[in-house]
Formats: sequence, C-alpha cells, structure tokens
Amino acid sequence: MIRDAAPADVEQLLRLIRELAEFERALDAVEATEEDLREALFCSDSKVFALVAEEAGAVVGMAIYFLSFSTWTGRHGLYLEDLFVVPEHRSRGVGRELVTALAVRAVQLGCSRVEWAVLDWNEAAISFYEALGAQAMGDWTTFRLSGPSLAALGGRPDS
Amino acid sequence: MIRDAAPADVEQLLRLIRELAEFERALDAVEATEEDLREALFCSDSKVFALVAEEAGAVVGMAIYFLSFSTWTGRHGLYLEDLFVVPEHRSRGVGRELVTALAVRAVQLGCSRVEWAVLDWNEAAISFYEALGAQAMGDWTTFRLSGPSLAALGGRPDS
Repeated sequence: MIRDAAPADVEQLLRLIRELAEFERALDAVEATEEDLREALFCSDSKVFALVAEEAGAVVGMAIYFLSFSTWTGRHGLYLEDLFVVPEHRSRGVGRELVTALAVRAVQLGCSRVEWAVLDWNEAAISFYEALGAQAMGDWTTFRLSGPSLAALGGRPDS
Repeated sequence: MIRDAAPADVEQLLRLIRELAEFERALDAVEATEEDLREALFCSDSKVFALVAEEAGAVVGMAIYFLSFSTWTGRHGLYLEDLFVVPEHRSRGVGRELVTALAVRAVQLGCSRVEWAVLDWNEAAISFYEALGAQAMGDWTTFRLSGPSLAALGGRPDS
C-alpha cells in the first residue's frame, strides 16, 4: 500500500534514509535527525513531502520529493530526492509502485516532469528507471555550493 | 542593484528566459507564458522565486530558484533553475552578484546547499561557477520522466 507519510513514520523514514546513504557509501553524511524530518515534512507550510510503501504495518519503502519549476514549460515539476525500498522487499514492484504514485501525483498537479539524480555506478537503478521510460539528461552536470564555499560566498546571517 | 522580482518584471523575465533558452539551443522548448510566470512567482503560496539585477530601470539579469531538500542534512537547499545576464551587461560582476545574493539568502534560511545544472559545453559558465567555489557533482546523472513517458506512467488526472 502506498500512502502519504504521517508523523508517526518519521523514525522509520530516518532509518531508510540512513540505509540508502549507507548503500551510497555516505552514511557519515547523514546529519538529519527525527526532529529535522518532522519539522520539514509536517510543518504547516511544508515544502517537502513523502510517500511510503507499507506492508503489514511496516514502512518498507519511501519516496521523498519536493516541487521543482521549469521556466521552459512555466509549470512545476516534482523532484524525487530519495527513493528507497528495503532489500528484503525488492523485486516485488514496490519501487515501481512508488514512482508510479509520484507520476500520478505529478499529472494531477499539472507538473511537466519528474526528475531525480542517480549515482553513475548504480546500474540496477539506471536499468529500473530506463524501464519506466525515464531519460538520462547526460549533457547536464549538477554543481553544488555547500560547506565552506557557501559560507564564504553567503556570509553569516545577521539574525 | 539586486532585488526580489515584482509582478511588473514578468514581461522582462520571460524575455530573459527566452534568451537563455536560445543560447541553450532550445528556444522551441519555451512554452511558458507571462500568465504562467505571474501565477507561479506571485501567487499567495508561491513555490518558486526570482531575484533580478536592475540597471537604469531595466532588468539585465535574473536568478530563478526554488527550495530543494537534503535528506542527508535534514535541511532545505536552494536550487537555481535559471541564471542569466544579458550579453551587453556581462563581465561586470552582475552574475556574481546574483549568485552571491542567492548564497546570502541560503545562509539566512539555514540552507545546506545551493545547486544548479550546467550544460557540459558551456565552458564559460563552468569556469565562472568553479571560481565561485562550486563543485561539479560528476558522479550523478539526472533522469527525467516527462511528455509521453510521464503521461503513460501517471495516467490522466480524473479532475
């Protein structure tokens, strides 16, 4: 069953985030706390959302997403920040159900696209996404300003 | 002068969006109308925002952005969808001022990162961003579901 995440899912969502980061060889990079997720996902003016796949009362998969915007189409899109299905529940269509639920939501919201980023060595994910009809945007590279570089350019806030 | 865009800027913003798309060899892809931009940027619950660079009453540059989210840091980021400075006003620091203003905003909002995508052949942009301290996320590829593929997976909305 795919449904919107609820505040009671936060502990399990963080567990899945940590499992995904471990798979991506970046577990050390996870600083997020349950409090961070609760605030971001369930505040009154939330800008980030989560779908969960539930089986027998347990969260076995998740899709965390936010709204993007395309200046070309003049319409919003959905950006899939994290997609994860716990290993014991793979190969049973849960991932496909999560992406399909997100695509349905995108169409309902009038969005022009759903996008996400994949690690180049994650061949299983790439095959899965291509089978869904997704296209690699191979001629674009993402740049990031973070940590000391962001602090140097953005300074420290006054308040 | 860098300031938040106002509804009266919409015509000039669309002109800049079209100029950027032309530079990116994709002018045909611009379907956005002034009405689309006005609604997206200035509705009461806007999810996309714009900074403009103004000189002598004319908009000579823009940065269009929205809020992203990092599950690793548990914090929002800013995603720079479009950065553009009109050719006649380049090499005078306008682009740097726009990105700096965005970095300041990111720090003020407690964001962990500012990200954007660059076309691989746009060497001038890549040099500019690297000089600002940005890092290429070279091991990630963006995938996109749009057009017929999105419609096939997401179906048609009931309402």
